[in-house]
Amino acid sequence: MKIINKTIQIQTKCENDIINISDLVEKEIRSTDIKNGSVTVFIKHSTAAITTIELDAGLEKDFPNMLKRIAPDDLSYEHEKKWHDGNGKSHVKASLIGPSLTIPFNNQKLLLGTWQQLIVLECDIKGRPRDIVLQIFGET
Amino acid sequence: MKIINKTIQIQTKCENDIINISDLVEKEIRSTDIKNGSVTVFIKHSTAAITTIELDAGLEKDFPNMLKRIAPDDLSYEHEKKWHDGNGKSHVKASLIGPSLTIPFNNQKLLLGTWQQLIVLECDIKGRPRDIVLQIFGET
Amino acid sequence: MKIINKTIQIQTKCENDIINISDLVEKEIRSTDIKNGSVTVFIKHSTAAITTIELDAGLEKDFPNMLKRIAPDDLSYEHEKKWHDGNGKSHVKASLIGPSLTIPFNNQKLLLGTWQQLIVLECDIKGRPRDIVLQIFGET
Repeated sequence: MKIINKTIQIQTKCENDIINISDLVEKEIRSTDIKNGSVTVFIKHSTAAITTIELDAGLEKDFPNMLKRIAPDDLSYEHEKKWHDGNGKSHVKASLIGPSLTIPFNNQKLLLGTWQQLIVLECDIKGRPRDIVLQIFGET
Repeated sequence: MKIINKTIQIQTKCENDIINISDLVEKEIRSTDIKNGSVTVFIKHSTAAITTIELDAGLEKDFPNMLKRIAPDDLSYEHEKKWHDGNGKSHVKASLIGPSLTIPFNNQKLLLGTWQQLIVLECDIKGRPRDIVLQIFGET
Repeated sequence: MKIINKTIQIQTKCENDIINISDLVEKEIRSTDIKNGSVTVFIKHSTAAITTIELDAGLEKDFPNMLKRIAPDDLSYEHEKKWHDGNGKSHVKASLIGPSLTIPFNNQKLLLGTWQQLIVLECDIKGRPRDIVLQIFGET
């Protein structure tokens, strides 16, 4: 049994950018000698989120559009009164989805479904560098 | 310390079907010799979700009804334009709730609250067979 | 490798109370000899939730306000017809956010972002004592 911590950095392009990190995470698992276990994927930010989705061109719009219905762009957020950074909506979306998932893997392959990708959603109002902790744990 | 992977399959009956899998998961834990640890429950699908709820006849309706307010049936989803399978709403609901939970157990008993059940929510527009990975980890 | 289970109890003050438990959880990690690993934080209740947020006075209001848009106070919930306890909305909010997070730590420090706190959100209609399981796992 072994635990290995890694941090990967991605760069999002804009608000609502969705990045498929499945291959990136699997590559990091394969760079270790851990064969069977799980990876906890944890994004160290309060305006970005981690989940899974079937990532196609349609859902790339539908998922952010759903979040806009919950946290509209044109609403007055209390967060703005102090910070004036325009991302009150971003914080509440990210907290609702959550910052983390734990995904089992076997033979260094994530046990995702065929149409299921591990993604980062940029909830902030512009693209940003994002640090993601990967804690890879299991049997060598 | 030991890790055991299992896959269980359930069959949902219809859209918004909620299945309590607490007993099923505990049974799988008891079929191992791991006494104290955690189980990561991961559904390998992009139109079904895992969470906990107090599962009574009322909330069985209230939870899906809330999701309908977020992702209405009669909205035009971009996903539909390519796939025409009527489940754009299903994908966005499932991604919002999430596909996975990690639940601690002790003496092979899940550490859930008295009124708290581990559930699968069918977000798709009809019942389906659903594969759920259980990664059981801990001390024998 | 070692697993240690702890239960902490907090007292929420009222509906929508948000409690930052980051320091409390780190203190529990430091009370063990586990240096590097992860903690699964699991709230044993169906009307309270766990997530991360940048906890400032603005978002303390914005996050509950968003949830009110999804699960309004004045809606008729099926849960009420049997229980008449006024917390149908609380259950659906808590199930949507989720009861748990797994957070990696290193040198007994949670690997959270600079502006990211681990929080409990009280979704019920009054403050309550809340039991939270911490399963601390890793290398000594």
